[in-house]
Amino acid sequence: MSNRLEKLREILASENVDAVLISDEKNIFYFTEFFGGFRLLAPVDGECILFVHSVNYEAAREQAKNVKVEPIRIGEKADAKIFEEVNRSGIKSLGLDRIGAAEYLRIKEGLKDVRIESLDNAIWSLRKVKDENEIAFMRKAAELTSKGMEKAIEIARAGRREYEVAAEIEFEMHKLGSNGIAFDTIICSGPDSAFPHGGWGEREIRSGDLVVIDIGAKYRGYCSDLTRTLIIGTPSEKQIHIYRTVAEAQKAAISRMKSGEKASEIDAAARRHIVERGYGEYFVHSLGHGVGLDIHEPPSLGPLSEDILSSCNVVTVEPGIYIPGFGGVRVEDTILIREEDAVKLTDAPILQL
Amino acid sequence: MSNRLEKLREILASENVDAVLISDEKNIFYFTEFFGGFRLLAPVDGECILFVHSVNYEAAREQAKNVKVEPIRIGEKADAKIFEEVNRSGIKSLGLDRIGAAEYLRIKEGLKDVRIESLDNAIWSLRKVKDENEIAFMRKAAELTSKGMEKAIEIARAGRREYEVAAEIEFEMHKLGSNGIAFDTIICSGPDSAFPHGGWGEREIRSGDLVVIDIGAKYRGYCSDLTRTLIIGTPSEKQIHIYRTVAEAQKAAISRMKSGEKASEIDAAARRHIVERGYGEYFVHSLGHGVGLDIHEPPSLGPLSEDILSSCNVVTVEPGIYIPGFGGVRVEDTILIREEDAVKLTDAPILQL
Repeated sequence: MSNRLEKLREILASENVDAVLISDEKNIFYFTEFFGGFRLLAPVDGECILFVHSVNYEAAREQAKNVKVEPIRIGEKADAKIFEEVNRSGIKSLGLDRIGAAEYLRIKEGLKDVRIESLDNAIWSLRKVKDENEIAFMRKAAELTSKGMEKAIEIARAGRREYEVAAEIEFEMHKLGSNGIAFDTIICSGPDSAFPHGGWGEREIRSGDLVVIDIGAKYRGYCSDLTRTLIIGTPSEKQIHIYRTVAEAQKAAISRMKSGEKASEIDAAARRHIVERGYGEYFVHSLGHGVGLDIHEPPSLGPLSEDILSSCNVVTVEPGIYIPGFGGVRVEDTILIREEDAVKLTDAPILQL
Repeated sequence: MSNRLEKLREILASENVDAVLISDEKNIFYFTEFFGGFRLLAPVDGECILFVHSVNYEAAREQAKNVKVEPIRIGEKADAKIFEEVNRSGIKSLGLDRIGAAEYLRIKEGLKDVRIESLDNAIWSLRKVKDENEIAFMRKAAELTSKGMEKAIEIARAGRREYEVAAEIEFEMHKLGSNGIAFDTIICSGPDSAFPHGGWGEREIRSGDLVVIDIGAKYRGYCSDLTRTLIIGTPSEKQIHIYRTVAEAQKAAISRMKSGEKASEIDAAARRHIVERGYGEYFVHSLGHGVGLDIHEPPSLGPLSEDILSSCNVVTVEPGIYIPGFGGVRVEDTILIREEDAVKLTDAPILQL
């Protein structure tokens, strides 16, 4: 953990910035192991200060690592307190991470003599390369998600309603130790499976349906992401053709993935396969995204991505074909990039059709 | 719904702004009934355009109300497309809602000749006054949350672990029709009950524990928020004194609430009671917050709040006392403000000690 702060300080030194004021709650967790901090002020040298509203002060004092905890008490103005500390420490240049426009403008106004710049990408350059602890947590999250999918495959039958299936999956992951869900569960059946982000509703699953099941457990703050599509009853020729195309596209992409590859070319490998089979217009999203403390984070696997994959990135690979009125198929795994190849962290059967 | 867009247009007219570009996903839902839009461009007159990434295009075409849906296709740049539309329609002044600093700076750069201003507060002025439909959905969310609390009270016994209780509550709400949870469930037992936002862990509940249970169901996007504190086994004198103080503080606050009251004075009424009983330093957060599509939204009930309550606001009232090493008590309900009084939407027993 303190290794992470050291790397952050190397960034500050190389960017010639006196300090960084971190606002994003997951970035704060990344450096302090504490959820619930308000702002983290990390100078290039000297003590890091975690500003915490009094509601979380006692928890921060017990749990936050590598920082001095400074409470913002009821009735105190947070901005004023932080600006005072920046001025007191003689900070002349300040990096920021992801922040709202209103807060940004208040900082520019309140710290007029301080040079402000974005270090958001620099912090992502750390977060997107997972360390050993993070990979262990992500393996555990993936394992819990895989158990959730086992449950889904067991219970998603004709006659069950989408929300019942969602409830059972989440309950299963929760009982096994998932710390909440990484995103809203998706159970989309029948024609609604053509909506990639369709959530779930009260629809009853019927024979002949495609059912897209997209789920993610969380463990120690780390997300996982897994999709399988079920075919209820006897698959039709068209369902089989689409399903095979998607599964092959995923395989084609994963087989090319390793450190040093362009993310856009991995997307292209999957997309080319789907285009060749005649479904290009129905693959309506990017191939995948980074996963970690956030469910969507760098690197991005899409046609416009400028990311290069590197060892210890964790990303999803999730080709899909969605035909309005007919239905959709998506197959997705959470993948760990290594020097020479890529391995699935999630595990669930792919239909052999 | 189109009533909401009409009110938005009145704001644009009175602020003398040609159009508003809405980025916040819940604001977009508020005006279109669709989750998953990317940006909503609403001019003071003429057609509203909902920009949607192609992943959500078919769903938007089916579900989004009052707008023309414009896809951002794979490989297209969203900013360029939106700026082009702004220029094409001759928009010279553009309002924005809550937006990230990076996006804000891109808009300033990409639309140099357009006057940019924030309409965030103006949009909140609409959202914080709930209409009939919203109140019906919030009643339903509150009802589901109350059922979850019934379950919690039934199962939270010595020997059960915090995460088991959390899993059962969420499962219950989910089965009854909750559309997900409004926030991460809090089950904090024993000394951990002194951490107001403590989440839940693997701790086994024991006789003598205080157990803070803070839960919320969601219905059609609308949140609810309810806390009860259980005392496992025979309550101690100190537990009784703290519990009574918190319950009385909540009652004192609610009895003063009606349209026209200052939010800061409602906070003060509860806080005064807790201070008088000698626990002032342990009430470490604001009294409450608005609830709606967001779990935390205006109006705020805290000492620094400048909000005035008005009819059809929905807010939480949640006094608490948290003593490090000893434990905490919080009692919270979701409350609807009316002309002459305020009523609880949530419903769960308060211990008669």
